[in-house]
Amino acid sequence: MGEEVKLYGATASHFSNRVNIALKLKGVEYKYYEEDLKNKSASLIKYNPIHKKVPTLVHNEKPVAESLVILEYIDETWKTHPILPQHPYERAQARFWSRFIEDKIVTTIIKVVKVKEDQKNALEEVSEYLEILEKELKDKYFGGESIGMVHLAGNIIALWIPILEELMGVEILTEAKFPKLCKWSHDFATHPVVKEVSPSKEELVAIFKPRWSPIN
Amino acid sequence: MGEEVKLYGATASHFSNRVNIALKLKGVEYKYYEEDLKNKSASLIKYNPIHKKVPTLVHNEKPVAESLVILEYIDETWKTHPILPQHPYERAQARFWSRFIEDKIVTTIIKVVKVKEDQKNALEEVSEYLEILEKELKDKYFGGESIGMVHLAGNIIALWIPILEELMGVEILTEAKFPKLCKWSHDFATHPVVKEVSPSKEELVAIFKPRWSPIN
Repeated sequence: MGEEVKLYGATASHFSNRVNIALKLKGVEYKYYEEDLKNKSASLIKYNPIHKKVPTLVHNEKPVAESLVILEYIDETWKTHPILPQHPYERAQARFWSRFIEDKIVTTIIKVVKVKEDQKNALEEVSEYLEILEKELKDKYFGGESIGMVHLAGNIIALWIPILEELMGVEILTEAKFPKLCKWSHDFATHPVVKEVSPSKEELVAIFKPRWSPIN
Repeated sequence: MGEEVKLYGATASHFSNRVNIALKLKGVEYKYYEEDLKNKSASLIKYNPIHKKVPTLVHNEKPVAESLVILEYIDETWKTHPILPQHPYERAQARFWSRFIEDKIVTTIIKVVKVKEDQKNALEEVSEYLEILEKELKDKYFGGESIGMVHLAGNIIALWIPILEELMGVEILTEAKFPKLCKWSHDFATHPVVKEVSPSKEELVAIFKPRWSPIN
């Protein structure tokens, strides 16, 4: 049975990156379409008329949108390398922390980048949420081969925060303050599949340099 | 095997109401604890130290927080009356629309209530998102016995919007503009289980009257 999997994404988007990694971990063959976010393709708009955003996954012409919803779909459709744990309680914990990252950490990082007046406060907020994560992330979420939902939800920490630090001249994820998160991020960022499909630091710096300026 | 299920909730919270309905639909026996949100119990804070919010479900002393995460947990733990559809693609659609309601409709309704300066714009935003829902909700989500994830995510539309309309003296969910959503809301609100566990209109009006004032 012929299966057709397409992913509309953008290199700069950590939301897209989540899905790229998940598909590769599962060994799903797919065709990737890079979107120009300032001039979105007719296909993207057709497949995701509500949000018109990347990532949008299209499986046998059926579209799925929203990165965390896509990750659940991928996990239910292709069974190799489970993204969510097996037991309902562990699954609930993984979903809880994924939402925590989405609602708190991603949101405040976007604030740091966008809200010019109040960057320092936003940066402190990011730090507070990272502290909660540092305290709560148990060993099961760290290292090893088993990259799961929380890692994918948290790819912004491992791959995007370093760019933010470099371009804005700030320190966020320091070894001294966040030893567990640093190890977690390092293990994730150096995983062969993650390295294979994720943009390099240089690529991201080149993309974001014109947009992100040093914090005052 | 003794099972202990506890739910910490608040009558005024549509987030709590979602979980109450889901547990009743599944026929799960549980003990409900009404929280005073101005003076939260030590138990709530112990079980949900991150957000300290209702609803918090505790199953055999293991806590689960965040209403949509709790609904997924309930659906995976108790198999009667499935809340999510069976097929991965249908599941993704239900999750997508639940998130749409959560991120767009719930958020803008809260804006209408809280942001005094710009209530009229916020009200228009609510209406725009409801229009998207009106267009997109297919027959499978309407009426009948099968109350699912999207209904539960959307309980604010059926049960809370009418209170908002009455107390703020506005019209939101009109029959003329939203015929499908009106029927959907009516079927949901009059379902025996929903009626049994949801606060009455009078109860909600009494709770919100001191907080919500007519829109200018």
